[in-house]
Amino acid sequence: MLKACIFITLVSISACVETPGPKFKPTKGEVWPKPQKENKSIEYYTFGPSLFKTKVTDKTCTILTRAVHRYTYMIQNDFGGPWMGSMWEDDGLRLGDMTTLEVTLTEPCEEYPSYGMNENYTLIISSTSKLESASVWGILRGLETFSHLLYYTDDYKQIRINKNIIDDSPSYIHRGLLLDTARHFISLKRILETLDAMSYNKMNVFHWHMVDDQSFPYQSEKYPELSEKGAYSPWMIYTKEDLQRVVEYARDRGIRVVPEFDVPGHTRSWGNSHPEILTNCSGLGLMDPSNDATYNFVSDIYEELNTIFPDDHRHIGGDEVDTRCWGKSSRVTEFIKEKGIGVENLQGLFIETLMSKLNDTKIIVWQEAFMLGVKLPKSALIQVWKWQEVEAMRKVLKAGYKVLFSTQYYLDDLSQDWDYLYKYDPREIMLARDSSLNLDNIVGGETCMWTERVNDSNVISRVWPRASAFAERFWSGGPGVPIPSSNDHSRLEEHTCRMIKRGIEAEPPNGPGLC
Amino acid sequence: MLKACIFITLVSISACVETPGPKFKPTKGEVWPKPQKENKSIEYYTFGPSLFKTKVTDKTCTILTRAVHRYTYMIQNDFGGPWMGSMWEDDGLRLGDMTTLEVTLTEPCEEYPSYGMNENYTLIISSTSKLESASVWGILRGLETFSHLLYYTDDYKQIRINKNIIDDSPSYIHRGLLLDTARHFISLKRILETLDAMSYNKMNVFHWHMVDDQSFPYQSEKYPELSEKGAYSPWMIYTKEDLQRVVEYARDRGIRVVPEFDVPGHTRSWGNSHPEILTNCSGLGLMDPSNDATYNFVSDIYEELNTIFPDDHRHIGGDEVDTRCWGKSSRVTEFIKEKGIGVENLQGLFIETLMSKLNDTKIIVWQEAFMLGVKLPKSALIQVWKWQEVEAMRKVLKAGYKVLFSTQYYLDDLSQDWDYLYKYDPREIMLARDSSLNLDNIVGGETCMWTERVNDSNVISRVWPRASAFAERFWSGGPGVPIPSSNDHSRLEEHTCRMIKRGIEAEPPNGPGLC
Repeated sequence: MLKACIFITLVSISACVETPGPKFKPTKGEVWPKPQKENKSIEYYTFGPSLFKTKVTDKTCTILTRAVHRYTYMIQNDFGGPWMGSMWEDDGLRLGDMTTLEVTLTEPCEEYPSYGMNENYTLIISSTSKLESASVWGILRGLETFSHLLYYTDDYKQIRINKNIIDDSPSYIHRGLLLDTARHFISLKRILETLDAMSYNKMNVFHWHMVDDQSFPYQSEKYPELSEKGAYSPWMIYTKEDLQRVVEYARDRGIRVVPEFDVPGHTRSWGNSHPEILTNCSGLGLMDPSNDATYNFVSDIYEELNTIFPDDHRHIGGDEVDTRCWGKSSRVTEFIKEKGIGVENLQGLFIETLMSKLNDTKIIVWQEAFMLGVKLPKSALIQVWKWQEVEAMRKVLKAGYKVLFSTQYYLDDLSQDWDYLYKYDPREIMLARDSSLNLDNIVGGETCMWTERVNDSNVISRVWPRASAFAERFWSGGPGVPIPSSNDHSRLEEHTCRMIKRGIEAEPPNGPGLC
Repeated sequence: MLKACIFITLVSISACVETPGPKFKPTKGEVWPKPQKENKSIEYYTFGPSLFKTKVTDKTCTILTRAVHRYTYMIQNDFGGPWMGSMWEDDGLRLGDMTTLEVTLTEPCEEYPSYGMNENYTLIISSTSKLESASVWGILRGLETFSHLLYYTDDYKQIRINKNIIDDSPSYIHRGLLLDTARHFISLKRILETLDAMSYNKMNVFHWHMVDDQSFPYQSEKYPELSEKGAYSPWMIYTKEDLQRVVEYARDRGIRVVPEFDVPGHTRSWGNSHPEILTNCSGLGLMDPSNDATYNFVSDIYEELNTIFPDDHRHIGGDEVDTRCWGKSSRVTEFIKEKGIGVENLQGLFIETLMSKLNDTKIIVWQEAFMLGVKLPKSALIQVWKWQEVEAMRKVLKAGYKVLFSTQYYLDDLSQDWDYLYKYDPREIMLARDSSLNLDNIVGGETCMWTERVNDSNVISRVWPRASAFAERFWSGGPGVPIPSSNDHSRLEEHTCRMIKRGIEAEPPNGPGLC
């Protein structure tokens, strides 16, 4: 009694045909995202959670210590269930117990994760396993990998880990998740869960689209009226302490936090308390580019953000600027007449003026800001999100800029299942079109969760495990990586079970199943 | 930076245009589902949760006592937040404090909710409000309504309830939710939450599609091997105690629990432990109709269900029977040769034979069982779920049977938003086609949550508040009830906020907003 067959565009697995049990059984001890190089044996070690210990053998720091504690605890939790003790028969494949993980960080810790940070690591699974990296971020990634390698036998009588050598590093250095907290307020709890899940998927940038037309949940110290009048309610706000907690929580997981306060469009909620910085065009619209006060106000906010967000990048938006609003304002039309420019140059002027006040900030903009010819520093990252994405990327690369890719990875589009998302590798797409370009300048991408139809109730299940497709594509993807096989579906079943066990309310990836 | 505009089939509210704040503000003190008759004044009473008391003035029973406690607690919880105390200025509309609700049940309680139970009630809001019904089920519905009428003022300084007279009763007597717990296991916690949410929406039948091809979570006392081998895991089962708890929890909320063990198709998981009752047709398929053991086995299970589920109805399935399986079995083909019937008559034979063993059970079947000419008792309810639903309903009604309507109300179809669902009133549809039919024989409907893509993580947000559209349509709908207005969108915003406040993780109904 299932109509899935007629909804095939939405539900890719039809259950119209009787199938004996679930279509994809979870794999056992597979890593998600897939490591770049893995040499896994069929021989294995048995594992007792209570016997297991971790040794830090070289450099250390708070981030590392906390991570070791966290993963030790997580492993206890993942495998603290119905394990029946170390009962085993000699099947000729068991190599003994795996009792120890040696963690070797060869260089001093960095204080905060940053653009281009080193995330490489090697991991050898043996009776004493060895994880090594020159970077604490690599250690974090390796600990995550280690935790994926353990698995129960079918009868839950053993926990095993196969003999293995892994040499791993990311294909793309920027692997982000955008979360919009303005269309609906997302609680601190859900944001921290999101960071947890990102770390389980080796993602490294939390792009926080914090405010927008609909609400202004950021509590400014200098301008508290912004959230007093712009937030949905007095308690649907982010205080400085909230934001600092997010930054610290993310840092411990090797995740950068990049805030976006989108300008000059998507700013209606600023106007609830500060109408003077918006243009009056049959109602309040875009920010007013003719007014010095606008730039000073916005740069005050950005200055305040500097006291909270240690990352050197800021996303300043620049998308969907409907310049007709400016054209309707007598004040603005007078201004452009004075300046001798057209309305089409106003967005460039706006962003350039703002940038001049932001000093050393490295900026990220939506693709429109680049396409409209805004003069951007070479360090700028251009986030491509619209259709005709290949042409957009080509233009950005030709001009010597760097690309972040988001087209196809919009999680609010429910017709796009994980295995559909997985197909879009920007370097692969670009290589097919123009092999003369420097594909390394496609530095990464972001999967985007706009929250028109998403609130605290469904944000986690809407993002996970679909964002895991993005995570794997950008960790170990690249030209030539095939579309998901049936084994990959089973791998994602296992990964989803794992996330659920860790408290992430992920939805089913593949139709009927265990998790 | 939102692509919603190009996904309009999926996301009905586009945010491409800048809007000042959310599109739909929650209403204040509106009832969902809308009562049949409501005479609301602009005059109001103020309300202090801690001063409020309920008096039972006539008959009582455990169900009633528990309900009064539950709603008193719920109101404390809904309004125990930032209420600032009874500060008020005389605006000429305040009639004083509303301090008391008198609950008058005029007839003795029934023990369990049942098909056709009386749910009518009247509710008068005054300084001493009065709720009256001849049925404890009506009292339950009235308490729910009462809890919806209270609201905060915008500044949270007052809680108010408007002077009002409500006379209410359901349009359709069967207002069900089907939950499939076989494609994914749904935990007891989520099932109880589902029953809570159903009661907030005045729904009265929990149709439990408990087992299917993929898993057999029901733990049978007589045949424990069914779940031992057929459940996803040893702990993904429903014990007798679990089921009894669900029945009692539902009873307290005026909700019937109707189990479905679908036969003769959708039965693959029975075969994990009892292959002998299935037909061997290149793998195990439909139940074997040629074998007495099959009927005895199934009726054993149904007999066991009688010790758990007090409701007099059972859903015995009968959908999607691919008779080609039977045609492939030499045993079955021999059987039909002996009987002198065609393979197309086998499903009829199967269901009739099974029914003869179920004694006084009233049955519900999916429409195919009727369409295939199975001889059904006149008490049978025919659940219409396929397309060409009008023709199907016409046939059922012509033959003098009763209809349950489910076509259009499949919640696994993500393209169907609540205001789309809301449009489908089966009596209205039928009236337009053939006014000679007895529309009262369309006794209700069910909204269906098949769980191929749904697990514990997203089952609540996938069902709510979309099922609320069904709930209102079948409570106070009927021919001529218009499609939702902008005020109805705002009403559902309020109802969604209310459900969330009560712990139901409902998703946003309408695009950006507060809840």
